[in-house]
Amino acid sequence: MITAEVLQNLPSSSLTYIKGDLQRIAKQVLPPEAAQAEALIFVSKKEQLEAALASQAPIIIAHKSLALPESSSSTFFSTPSIQLSMAAVLPLFDGKMNRFRQEFKIHPQSFVHPNAHLGSNVTVGPFASIGDGARIGDFCTIGANTVVENDVVIGDHTLLHSLVFIGAHCEIGAHCEIHPHVTIGADGFSFAMTAQGEHKKIPQLGRVVLGDAVEIGANCTIDRAALTETRIGRGTKIDNLCHIAHNVTIGENGVIAAGFKIAGSSHIGNNFMCGGEVSIRDHVKVTDRVVLAGRSGVTFDITSAGQYGGYPLESFRDHLRTVMSLPQLPKLRKQVSRLLKHLNLEEEEKS
Amino acid sequence: MITAEVLQNLPSSSLTYIKGDLQRIAKQVLPPEAAQAEALIFVSKKEQLEAALASQAPIIIAHKSLALPESSSSTFFSTPSIQLSMAAVLPLFDGKMNRFRQEFKIHPQSFVHPNAHLGSNVTVGPFASIGDGARIGDFCTIGANTVVENDVVIGDHTLLHSLVFIGAHCEIGAHCEIHPHVTIGADGFSFAMTAQGEHKKIPQLGRVVLGDAVEIGANCTIDRAALTETRIGRGTKIDNLCHIAHNVTIGENGVIAAGFKIAGSSHIGNNFMCGGEVSIRDHVKVTDRVVLAGRSGVTFDITSAGQYGGYPLESFRDHLRTVMSLPQLPKLRKQVSRLLKHLNLEEEEKS
Amino acid sequence: MITAEVLQNLPSSSLTYIKGDLQRIAKQVLPPEAAQAEALIFVSKKEQLEAALASQAPIIIAHKSLALPESSSSTFFSTPSIQLSMAAVLPLFDGKMNRFRQEFKIHPQSFVHPNAHLGSNVTVGPFASIGDGARIGDFCTIGANTVVENDVVIGDHTLLHSLVFIGAHCEIGAHCEIHPHVTIGADGFSFAMTAQGEHKKIPQLGRVVLGDAVEIGANCTIDRAALTETRIGRGTKIDNLCHIAHNVTIGENGVIAAGFKIAGSSHIGNNFMCGGEVSIRDHVKVTDRVVLAGRSGVTFDITSAGQYGGYPLESFRDHLRTVMSLPQLPKLRKQVSRLLKHLNLEEEEKS
Repeated sequence: MITAEVLQNLPSSSLTYIKGDLQRIAKQVLPPEAAQAEALIFVSKKEQLEAALASQAPIIIAHKSLALPESSSSTFFSTPSIQLSMAAVLPLFDGKMNRFRQEFKIHPQSFVHPNAHLGSNVTVGPFASIGDGARIGDFCTIGANTVVENDVVIGDHTLLHSLVFIGAHCEIGAHCEIHPHVTIGADGFSFAMTAQGEHKKIPQLGRVVLGDAVEIGANCTIDRAALTETRIGRGTKIDNLCHIAHNVTIGENGVIAAGFKIAGSSHIGNNFMCGGEVSIRDHVKVTDRVVLAGRSGVTFDITSAGQYGGYPLESFRDHLRTVMSLPQLPKLRKQVSRLLKHLNLEEEEKS
Repeated sequence: MITAEVLQNLPSSSLTYIKGDLQRIAKQVLPPEAAQAEALIFVSKKEQLEAALASQAPIIIAHKSLALPESSSSTFFSTPSIQLSMAAVLPLFDGKMNRFRQEFKIHPQSFVHPNAHLGSNVTVGPFASIGDGARIGDFCTIGANTVVENDVVIGDHTLLHSLVFIGAHCEIGAHCEIHPHVTIGADGFSFAMTAQGEHKKIPQLGRVVLGDAVEIGANCTIDRAALTETRIGRGTKIDNLCHIAHNVTIGENGVIAAGFKIAGSSHIGNNFMCGGEVSIRDHVKVTDRVVLAGRSGVTFDITSAGQYGGYPLESFRDHLRTVMSLPQLPKLRKQVSRLLKHLNLEEEEKS
Repeated sequence: MITAEVLQNLPSSSLTYIKGDLQRIAKQVLPPEAAQAEALIFVSKKEQLEAALASQAPIIIAHKSLALPESSSSTFFSTPSIQLSMAAVLPLFDGKMNRFRQEFKIHPQSFVHPNAHLGSNVTVGPFASIGDGARIGDFCTIGANTVVENDVVIGDHTLLHSLVFIGAHCEIGAHCEIHPHVTIGADGFSFAMTAQGEHKKIPQLGRVVLGDAVEIGANCTIDRAALTETRIGRGTKIDNLCHIAHNVTIGENGVIAAGFKIAGSSHIGNNFMCGGEVSIRDHVKVTDRVVLAGRSGVTFDITSAGQYGGYPLESFRDHLRTVMSLPQLPKLRKQVSRLLKHLNLEEEEKS
């Protein structure tokens, strides 16, 4: 529950107070199509603004391109970016950290190794375990049933949700968020084949290092390096069910959608973005500022920034042409068949 | 261990007693190719019936299309649907709930918040935790190491297996079954990009709501909505390793095979079915009674019921033609090359 | 920390002492590009050897094809296979089992059912639970928060990492390694549709059986069989985020990369290998010694050993031709269009 005045005082360049009663109160945030008399509403289109007005929303945050009504009981803010204004305003309504409130900061049913080092204001949930030599930064939250193995290092203000696994010696930056059922630091997949066709395990001695402000979605797996480090750079965000193999490095400020899989020893630059279900083979390099369409498959180095798609990978424009041509393939075969027949060239086919 | 009499008394329209000793006993159920003297056998083909007879199976449930032998020591039932008769009979042999039997219904090594409300006959396994304000229905089972966060609501007779995560405020219907390592209610994947190319998190204030009789396979992820609800309708069944993004709604009685991934704010109607590894982009609508082939990729609305496949999506019939044509592509290129040469049209190529 | 002498005494045919001081000490292992004065280095190329020499690496293990320097302070070993020599040497540097060291072998915060049977030298981590009737072999390690349900059987020297789920009655061989968030023995995905379009669950009465020396990567799911056994043969290694459906059998010594998904009742022979993101439909048979390219889709039986790729599947050579032809498709359409125009055959198109 907030007043418009609270918004006015937010130190965010994405929000400008326009007009209306600063004592108006919003109890929740709803999308325009579900607008209610007690809800703050973000609107980027004329119809959305009309819906919000019709519902007598107390507070409306409107994209700056919209013309606001002359008179209205709503209080108005303007924004150059609905997304950025949501990022600024929604934390005021976010009760996420309430989930981790408990009578004692260190839950009596958790296990913290005597040689682990916990910073100040650390919360450890029930059935979580913190291993020998682990170092947990200030204001960290370790969810229920989360396992932090020995010698792990975790920066300040990082949130490990419940049922997370962080393997021995891995390092997680500050202000990171790791969602449930993530596996960080399982072994890389590496075997040597004997003459008899058996596969001998090559031990994986390295670790995983995540920079600050990294977010890892639920049920992802990030394997430890063979000898050195698998690294994910500062500010990179990864969606659910992604797989990062051993020795991979991913740069800063990437945004990676669900189902991404990257094989061993590949390197991705900064500001990478991709749609869902992209796969990248082993030992390739992708330069900075590359954007990949969903379902892309990368099998060679990408040396120029830009948008790409498809398998094999093409420029995004060519990829669209190729994909759109696919359903024409059966017709094309018929046409070629007719051409060959017309020119009596079918014979030569037998080669 | 059951007698034929027990089957005769089952209130199932999919099973008709035909003939034989009602005191015959079956100790287990086996497939026809592994038939044994003490096993109940389901048979839908002549060879299977012969194998079952040869093994002297005590009880045989045969598809109604099969001619049964004049004389046999086996006891026979007839069914119009092997699948439905299995669904009716196999629960008699299913010891699944034995896994959750324990000396005390609430395991002494679990954690149930004093403000949680548990219905009657609830089982809570070791190292499970139930949060503040959570409401668990009657006859629910909460497996070992499962985390139910604060204010979660769970309907009667629902089974959460071990190592399940249900995030704060989510709601699970009655008679649901959630398999291990499922994550329900992690944050949707949503960030606002700043002018500097950094990504600010947009808090996810919504929740997940599953209808009654929903089943979620192992290691699936279902993200909470940005503001409202991610919803899965009554009776929908989802296989392993699927991803449902924020704000998605899926209708009733769907059957969704493994590896399915659907991006944010897309909506699927009732009676949806799909093969493995299907992906659906964000903000599309799929009408009722749509069936998708495995590996389909949906990038636009589907407005008519029917069968579809491929990427880009086509009618199932066209999809098959397209896929079957793909291996002809190299030959087609040669043919066109020959045609161009034959007609001296190669020059014009340079454009 | 080891001496060259320790390597000389290793009973491995993949390592031959060549020359140098046997008392030289290596404190760690690094890749050639990060060679340091205290690190053992494996080198397979001339440049790598030069880098190792420049860093004054105490011990160098070189592929036998490389010419070693006349004089050097390094101690040299030769190997016919870098991979096999890594598999032989790296265990000397692997501290993995230290993660599981604890004051009491059976952690006081674990739960071991009184009717479970533990072999000698078994370690059980905090918040792990071992069910009624489970049998754990000698020298097994059960990680933190891992759930072993009733009547599970686990062979000697097997390592279950943390947060693993092994369902009731499943059997794991000896010398296996199961990574975090693996689900073994969830129900197969099987429903019978009623006339009203609802889906009745068909109980899954079978189990999963893994042979000896099987490794399962993080967050994989292996479903129990409907009536009998889902089986993975001796020595098969499976990468992260793979899905094995009910009734599947996979032979011995397979190597299966991340994202693999195989549908129900399919059978794969011995010595199977595949790249990432391969999918195999239900009820197909794949013979021994089949190798599949990444992203392959198998929809029919493979009856001959060999290399394959693509969807639909082709021989690996044909697959490459098809994939490489795809980007030519838009150009091909234009060429055919021109040919039709040239010959005044466009009319006939309207059919």
